[in-house]
Amino acid sequence: MNNVTIVKIGGNVVDSPELLQEVLQKFTQLQGYKLLVHGGGKLATQMGEKLGIKAHMVEGRRVTDADTLQIVTMVYGGGINKRIVALLQAVGCNAMGLTGADGNLIPAHKRQRGDRDWGFVGDFDTANINVILLESLFAAGITPVVAPLTHDGQGSLLNTNADTIASGLAVALSSSFKTTLVYSFEKKGVLTNVNNPDSVIAHITPGSYSQYKQDGVIADGMIPKLDNAFNAIEAGVSSVRICYATDIADLESGTTLCL
Amino acid sequence: MNNVTIVKIGGNVVDSPELLQEVLQKFTQLQGYKLLVHGGGKLATQMGEKLGIKAHMVEGRRVTDADTLQIVTMVYGGGINKRIVALLQAVGCNAMGLTGADGNLIPAHKRQRGDRDWGFVGDFDTANINVILLESLFAAGITPVVAPLTHDGQGSLLNTNADTIASGLAVALSSSFKTTLVYSFEKKGVLTNVNNPDSVIAHITPGSYSQYKQDGVIADGMIPKLDNAFNAIEAGVSSVRICYATDIADLESGTTLCL
Repeated sequence: MNNVTIVKIGGNVVDSPELLQEVLQKFTQLQGYKLLVHGGGKLATQMGEKLGIKAHMVEGRRVTDADTLQIVTMVYGGGINKRIVALLQAVGCNAMGLTGADGNLIPAHKRQRGDRDWGFVGDFDTANINVILLESLFAAGITPVVAPLTHDGQGSLLNTNADTIASGLAVALSSSFKTTLVYSFEKKGVLTNVNNPDSVIAHITPGSYSQYKQDGVIADGMIPKLDNAFNAIEAGVSSVRICYATDIADLESGTTLCL
Repeated sequence: MNNVTIVKIGGNVVDSPELLQEVLQKFTQLQGYKLLVHGGGKLATQMGEKLGIKAHMVEGRRVTDADTLQIVTMVYGGGINKRIVALLQAVGCNAMGLTGADGNLIPAHKRQRGDRDWGFVGDFDTANINVILLESLFAAGITPVVAPLTHDGQGSLLNTNADTIASGLAVALSSSFKTTLVYSFEKKGVLTNVNNPDSVIAHITPGSYSQYKQDGVIADGMIPKLDNAFNAIEAGVSSVRICYATDIADLESGTTLCL
């Protein structure tokens, strides 16, 4: 089985040209097949504000109306995605930018959850991800760079959380590859003490995770991220590493989750 | 030799959602391998105006400063390209959006012509187009949708005229395929009388082209377009058809150029 590493880079990386360049350079050092998923950062919100469109957030997620969809399609699918592709090409990585619509990579559907209108937000079933497309791109020496957009198969793009896309792609690829998922992050890993940036927990298992939650060591925003990561591992991903952005190529850094 | 048809759709099509949908539906009716190249339309200019960045035109072409490059990357590479991809997916065409940076499709260099600064405008050598990538996408049942952007291999995207990209791709593909280039257009073809929309010249050869120019029947903006088309034919493209956008699948429509 070949190895594949899926790296998610967040908004903080995308928002800083210097950091982005450094992280992309590290990304090229990863061995085996690799795939990059990027978040959106502040650019879409800034662009929306300049154009007089306010971001509307519910539970930390953007509610995507038609105007916002147009902006995120431009910013995520064009501005950010193509900039990353051009930068990777410059450091010898044959990158290709994709949304979930391109080559029908990630068929999705508009979110139906409760009676709230989520707008153009997409949820997808991992089983529908076009793994054959990714396999043929890897075989051709191409490194996919995936923007956080999916599509409904009826002509509309949909806004989808980048963390969810990264774990979905990792799970889908785990049937054909030994798959590692790396979440880059603004901290060095999962910390036992938020005030000590070096208090990184090197390994977390489902058992120690329960204990950390019970003790309140892991709380708030880390919980959905880690739940997501453990779901990926239970679905076939070999390991998930959470580390500082410039540490993505240092396999010993950060917090590693495994069974 | 397999057939491939390269269709260029212009700004007037991109600017009208209804027309775009109709044209894309016609595009799917073309037999054999196919590839779509789209122009930018007014959206980039409108976006630039809203953001307080003025378009700077020299000889009918946008001079691309850094701010303008960011806008065209968003609008061409994201907003327009991904909208077309999603619409094609909805009508059963497995489209994939690409800029010249993706998969290193069109390596280019910043324009060096005279002592004028053209900014981030790219010129490319047809011999450098990544035909192998296109061949592998065709073989995988994928229809490339190409935005008018190239890259310099040093991390920067470059703005490149969509007509030039369409003819360059057609020439590059003509070594492996019987290649037809279709320029869709706001008129029914090349007209003998601009005031009579039905006065379409069905066929033009290099000989009759000289005569039409000498007689002043063909003048102004048509000349660079037709020069470009005849250059493509001399470089190996089988035929070039210039027709109304919704006529792209009607092989008898418009003006056909051949040797």
